[in-house]
Amino acid sequence: MPLALPEFPDLERLVRPRSVVLVGASAKPGSLGRRTADNLLHASDFGGDVHLVNPRAADIDGHPCHPDVESLPAVPDVAVIAIPAAGVMDALERCATKGIAYAIVLTSGFGEVGGDGRVQQDRMRALAARTGMRIYGPNCPGLTNLADRIGMTFSPAFADDRRVGPIGIATQGGGLGRNLVQAAERGAGAALWASLGNAADLDVADFVHHLAQDDGVKVILTLLEGVRDGRRLLAAFRAAAAAGKPVVTLKVGRSAYGVRAVQSHTAAMAGSAEVNSAVFAQLGVVEVADTDELMDVGWLLARAAPPPRTRIAIFGGSGGAGAMAADMVGAAGLELAEFAPETTAALREALPAFAAVGNPVDITATTISAPGLMDRTLGIVAADPNVDLVLLPIPLDYGDHSAHGSRAMAEVQSRTGTPLLPVWMSDRRGPGWQILADAGFCSPRSLTKAVSAVRHWADHGRWRAAAPAPAPLILNGRAAGEPLPDVRTEPAAKAWLAAAGIAVPEGVVARTEAEARAAAAELGGRLVLKAVSPDLHHKSDVGGVVLGVEGADAAAEAWERVVASASAHGTVEGVLVERMAPAGGVEMLVGVHRDPVYGHLISVGMGGVHVEVFGDVQRRLLPLDRRTAEEMLDGLRCKRLLEGVRGAPRHDVEGLVDLLLAVSALVERHADAIGELDLNPVLVRPAGAAGPTVLALDALVVGA
Amino acid sequence: MPLALPEFPDLERLVRPRSVVLVGASAKPGSLGRRTADNLLHASDFGGDVHLVNPRAADIDGHPCHPDVESLPAVPDVAVIAIPAAGVMDALERCATKGIAYAIVLTSGFGEVGGDGRVQQDRMRALAARTGMRIYGPNCPGLTNLADRIGMTFSPAFADDRRVGPIGIATQGGGLGRNLVQAAERGAGAALWASLGNAADLDVADFVHHLAQDDGVKVILTLLEGVRDGRRLLAAFRAAAAAGKPVVTLKVGRSAYGVRAVQSHTAAMAGSAEVNSAVFAQLGVVEVADTDELMDVGWLLARAAPPPRTRIAIFGGSGGAGAMAADMVGAAGLELAEFAPETTAALREALPAFAAVGNPVDITATTISAPGLMDRTLGIVAADPNVDLVLLPIPLDYGDHSAHGSRAMAEVQSRTGTPLLPVWMSDRRGPGWQILADAGFCSPRSLTKAVSAVRHWADHGRWRAAAPAPAPLILNGRAAGEPLPDVRTEPAAKAWLAAAGIAVPEGVVARTEAEARAAAAELGGRLVLKAVSPDLHHKSDVGGVVLGVEGADAAAEAWERVVASASAHGTVEGVLVERMAPAGGVEMLVGVHRDPVYGHLISVGMGGVHVEVFGDVQRRLLPLDRRTAEEMLDGLRCKRLLEGVRGAPRHDVEGLVDLLLAVSALVERHADAIGELDLNPVLVRPAGAAGPTVLALDALVVGA
Repeated sequence: MPLALPEFPDLERLVRPRSVVLVGASAKPGSLGRRTADNLLHASDFGGDVHLVNPRAADIDGHPCHPDVESLPAVPDVAVIAIPAAGVMDALERCATKGIAYAIVLTSGFGEVGGDGRVQQDRMRALAARTGMRIYGPNCPGLTNLADRIGMTFSPAFADDRRVGPIGIATQGGGLGRNLVQAAERGAGAALWASLGNAADLDVADFVHHLAQDDGVKVILTLLEGVRDGRRLLAAFRAAAAAGKPVVTLKVGRSAYGVRAVQSHTAAMAGSAEVNSAVFAQLGVVEVADTDELMDVGWLLARAAPPPRTRIAIFGGSGGAGAMAADMVGAAGLELAEFAPETTAALREALPAFAAVGNPVDITATTISAPGLMDRTLGIVAADPNVDLVLLPIPLDYGDHSAHGSRAMAEVQSRTGTPLLPVWMSDRRGPGWQILADAGFCSPRSLTKAVSAVRHWADHGRWRAAAPAPAPLILNGRAAGEPLPDVRTEPAAKAWLAAAGIAVPEGVVARTEAEARAAAAELGGRLVLKAVSPDLHHKSDVGGVVLGVEGADAAAEAWERVVASASAHGTVEGVLVERMAPAGGVEMLVGVHRDPVYGHLISVGMGGVHVEVFGDVQRRLLPLDRRTAEEMLDGLRCKRLLEGVRGAPRHDVEGLVDLLLAVSALVERHADAIGELDLNPVLVRPAGAAGPTVLALDALVVGA
Repeated sequence: MPLALPEFPDLERLVRPRSVVLVGASAKPGSLGRRTADNLLHASDFGGDVHLVNPRAADIDGHPCHPDVESLPAVPDVAVIAIPAAGVMDALERCATKGIAYAIVLTSGFGEVGGDGRVQQDRMRALAARTGMRIYGPNCPGLTNLADRIGMTFSPAFADDRRVGPIGIATQGGGLGRNLVQAAERGAGAALWASLGNAADLDVADFVHHLAQDDGVKVILTLLEGVRDGRRLLAAFRAAAAAGKPVVTLKVGRSAYGVRAVQSHTAAMAGSAEVNSAVFAQLGVVEVADTDELMDVGWLLARAAPPPRTRIAIFGGSGGAGAMAADMVGAAGLELAEFAPETTAALREALPAFAAVGNPVDITATTISAPGLMDRTLGIVAADPNVDLVLLPIPLDYGDHSAHGSRAMAEVQSRTGTPLLPVWMSDRRGPGWQILADAGFCSPRSLTKAVSAVRHWADHGRWRAAAPAPAPLILNGRAAGEPLPDVRTEPAAKAWLAAAGIAVPEGVVARTEAEARAAAAELGGRLVLKAVSPDLHHKSDVGGVVLGVEGADAAAEAWERVVASASAHGTVEGVLVERMAPAGGVEMLVGVHRDPVYGHLISVGMGGVHVEVFGDVQRRLLPLDRRTAEEMLDGLRCKRLLEGVRGAPRHDVEGLVDLLLAVSALVERHADAIGELDLNPVLVRPAGAAGPTVLALDALVVGA
């Protein structure tokens, strides 16, 4: 039974209200109420009504003040609350009673100060749930609608937020969010910035969902500290993917310091960085490490949809910068374009003999003496059918010459769909820099950052081209999950796996020494004996495992040893006598765990110490489809071992994919009951070898 | 017999000439000769004589012209050559004859165009060697002495190069070099910029050596494409280390595209990136990936010498930016300071209750209403004895408030030795940005770049504190190297290793089946048999190895098989019968190869496919000292396996260090004769196990 998708509120009238009331409007210079009134009354181009509420003033700047919300002549769409914390709950109650649909609470002093502030914030959330009035904030700079020029914010910087563009921004914190808005200075314009502060009610997921429906938005940037509701965030990301709008995310909490700082800053749990990253990757959400990278990647994705395969041309007047760019392109695993023969011929004809017409193209300093040459030759390169993007490293500011170059780039971009990515590498921002920004190029701050942005752009193009099915939502919480049989012991877990089509070694449980003898005789060959116990998870640490046993006598003797050793540490219900796995093959591990934010994820990596020492592991949300399972293996460095490095045989990779899918189906069926599942090791044998080629040698299931 | 150190020229009178002649001075607007004359006559504050040579002009700007160098009234220190390529060789001959000590050739059209240009450049080099006149260039923008304001360059941008500071810059390319000079715009000043172009004679190594002696220089930045003479570069780096001046390097050539582009741009070989990086690390040369990083790290190193251990405070008014900074600090493996109790108490007293007084410190937006609070609280943090650096993320431009913050930083920095690192993260450069630059802060362009710079700074502090011995110079080329015995077969190589104190398995060479029987009887236990051949390097691929042989009969049978199989592929001189290594332990590989640029390097990593699949390998120049050998192992991720992960025993790490030192001594003794040496695998057994605990199981020596 599929889960219903989470529902999202309609935020159209919050973002584009027909009328607004400012509760706490003030004439006092520098005050929250004054700065917010300035933005609503003066810095906005708001066509609708702005009502002011202040019981102690007759008017502000000639706009009449009302004593309270009740006395407003109409019901505004949005209330902006800018009064001290003590009065906020009362004001919100009044707004809800009036029938106002949305409230933006700018005031601080709630969840972020703990204690009573947290209690008040919980009341705020309850009020929203009870009345249906949606609350934005508290402890936030407000909502900035750049496209329609409506500043429901106290920030005096709003007056300068003039560059409008196709980027939608949803952040938790305010300072980092404004950092993104100020990227306008280097040419990137935004449509809307939601900065949700404590997010008592509305949160980043709601705005991601809203931006996915907003026609003025092409790309969504999010900046996350904690994730409160993984399922809603995933659903919002899915909505963005369905609308064809890339999401670029920066998630704080990759280190213990970050996790601690997030918790102290927002009282939110940062969650596991590995899990967040795995989930983002699975949903096609581009994850970056810094605020400038959010804008670098977001702008590039907004500028042009990335193709399935990205072939890069490098063009410029500095051979050194071109070589460095080519070096970085290669080090990032990206591809340089091979020019079509006509391109090379046309460049050869246009440029002097000492220019380089390969890729990178180095037109040298010729443009200084021959203006027009750059327009022509850059146009030739951008028109090459093998070129998907042109990277233009500009190492230095050369005054008017650079300005000419920037104009040439703008001119060429105006007549080609191939994105041009100029990189103004110098700290000197001459006229050429301003021309690029005004032409709408968002030049990355360094060449490394530019190449990293192209890498993300190209990766997203590959992800899109693969046209992945919508990523799964969280499995648990589904009422109809089947109960789990009793799989607390290894043989029970293995029987359950075997019934689901996962091969395990042949084995028999011997409850007596005599049964051990009989089992040895029946199975034959080299055996392993393991204590059967519902409460011993690490049997070999307590002498509960004996390897390489041959014959009935040895089996009887091993049975005794296992029972004697293991009984000292837990209940022993018998001894599992198993055929030892054939020699050879690669030992992998497959695990499932239930993340508190996102639900069940599956992991696969090389067994033994490799996951720990080399961190070579891939994770995905369950359930898996076949392609996703294959991608997991493709993402492992040890895939080369599976494929047979240096003449070693190819192992049964398809069988391992089948096992991952079988595990996925099992967990899907019993989601609510499964907390953890570990198959470690899973032996993957050469493809075509006799007998099963993918075997779970050990199995552990922990209930939810 | 130790090698003599390479010698370096005295460049004092090239960098600070008493008089200069410009050959090719011109009045023609825009010409090379005009632009260079402008710089020498007008944009420089040069106290000495500037002579002009132009046979077709009486004077330029009122300065008399001489028809040729011969007719100059005196011998200038430096000739700057700005005439077309065809006349350059003749002009250089005349300069040398006149007794001029240094010539700077700005003209292009030499090595970089190939063909006759390359021939002319070789003649230039020969002229320098023959006459003793040192040549700088050709194909370069010239030499820029910022500290003394002497611009021996054609670049019109020189007029704006006004910020002087303690950074010395030596580059190959001009465009990227000027990028570094333009970092002046964000507060970093330079003393000298040498941009050596084709480097027919003088090269980057000469200027690194010069800058190491220059009292006005604290840190040296280099930008390298190819390395022509590894030994001289190493010697120059050693001179810098001896003078206590850190070197920061960007080396192009980390990818195949980069290697190709370097070759096409400069006709130089880029060399192996892994080897370059290993050599730089060993010499304490800080390697970075981008031009902005060169300046970020260089400026920070010039600002303050890094301590042995770096504890970072984060301070600011944005909780989100502080949390992100803390996150990055942790992800970079850096350490946040634990404040002294007095610090926390003083902050608690100075700041309102909702501010965060831990680390990161978040003073919130309080400074807006309480100017002076930032000066006080930042001062408290910078004075904490547990704080080695204060990172100040500034996420947004807030106009006058930001300006106030910048002034507070400058004020606090003026009274503390603890370096403050403000990071202006916004693209909006308000007045606060300019105040930082003018106060001499070189704010990194992004928080990621800042944290990366701190990481390099901290690493360099650890390197300095370890007070490493001067790094070795290249071993080969020493006349007195001992000849190598005949070690072409495995038993011969093993006997040679054993004589040097490296344990190998017990073994006997059996030339007949009967000898194989006798050997098996003598050695006993499980054996391995391997073909002995001077020309078969991969014996197991051709059936030349049989494992797990027990008893005389089996040995005789195996002897037959090995001889039969291997004889089909090479000369078989017998069969090595060896005791099989005991079970358990970690298989490592130890190798030596002779790099064409830097000479012999030693590598160590985990054996089998691990080096290839996980790239977990460490390399160093030979010879090794004990600490360097230990550092190699510390740098391996698989060190944890050697140390015994998850209750596994600790392996004989000291024995492996001994083996590395023994290999180093062997190669040092026979340097000229050894091309390659591979011990693969080297079995490292649990420390204290019976028998040898570090054994070379296979050995291959290839002559030079």
